[in-house]
Amino acid sequence: MSSPVPVRFVGSAVGDWRLDRIEPVRGERLPAAEKLVVLEGVGTAVTAEVVWALRGVTSNERYVNRAEHDMLAAKQPSLGRPSATRAALIPIRKSDAWWELAQDERRAILGERSRHIEIGREYLPAVARRLYHSRDLVEPFDFLTWFEYAPQDARAFEDLVARLRQTEEWSYVEREVDIRLSR
Amino acid sequence: MSSPVPVRFVGSAVGDWRLDRIEPVRGERLPAAEKLVVLEGVGTAVTAEVVWALRGVTSNERYVNRAEHDMLAAKQPSLGRPSATRAALIPIRKSDAWWELAQDERRAILGERSRHIEIGREYLPAVARRLYHSRDLVEPFDFLTWFEYAPQDARAFEDLVARLRQTEEWSYVEREVDIRLSR
Repeated sequence: MSSPVPVRFVGSAVGDWRLDRIEPVRGERLPAAEKLVVLEGVGTAVTAEVVWALRGVTSNERYVNRAEHDMLAAKQPSLGRPSATRAALIPIRKSDAWWELAQDERRAILGERSRHIEIGREYLPAVARRLYHSRDLVEPFDFLTWFEYAPQDARAFEDLVARLRQTEEWSYVEREVDIRLSR
Repeated sequence: MSSPVPVRFVGSAVGDWRLDRIEPVRGERLPAAEKLVVLEGVGTAVTAEVVWALRGVTSNERYVNRAEHDMLAAKQPSLGRPSATRAALIPIRKSDAWWELAQDERRAILGERSRHIEIGREYLPAVARRLYHSRDLVEPFDFLTWFEYAPQDARAFEDLVARLRQTEEWSYVEREVDIRLSR
């Protein structure tokens, strides 16, 4: 938790995850790749042609308050559960209008008005989730969110994603790609 | 403002700024260098041996609310004023204990209890300031703050720095180096 961990999600011909679907939700698409590999830390390389590589870093929380943090920590499962053979990688970029908002304005939209934290909580512990920050790395996306779930929770996951996309917060998303994977 | 701008502060034998003093305030020191150059964007290189290079990025605000943002925006001067021939670069790293706090806890310490934003405001427009974020770049420091001021405001600047170092927020600073420059 404490020190940021850099990660690269690499689309290529190798990797533990088979790439089942890659669709642009808003804005420019990403090209298809056969597989996905998740590389944590630095110094690792992919032994195949890279179709795309998205970089992010685990970081401190930006919006959740102490009560929300403790509630989430009590319910959220770890990544890598053997039953979680489905995954999604959803890179998004938010607009300049979002980033020019002050902290209290962004919190009000994300928290109180869009209920982002509450909605996510409803799908715990079925859907494990980890957020990576990319904006400060001057990447094409601001965030990469990684989700893992079992096949029987796939419908619940679709519901989660659909609900978030209807929020006021999502009106600030100017680019989004939806990548679905299985292993 | 909108897109993050990467910057490197490079201590070497070349640069616009003469390095007058470099002192460890807490934790490990940085070696002395003759001069400092500030490189914005990517693709620029230094034509001398690099003693140290600190990377950061301008980023969205993390704590100020709308009222504070507007108040600061109305009072803060731009960098590069001809009269501002003194500068300071103060890299700091905060402890794990800080980063494990939730957003509302960090805001309460920085804002309401340490009055960081209020204290800074008192020295506007004399002291121009820009904050660079380094933590997500997995750098040795979490933040690099750059200050510029005229020689006649040097005493006010010392006062500003001394007051911040006495705050509760500063009890979470585990490494700090104070670098003073002139041109």
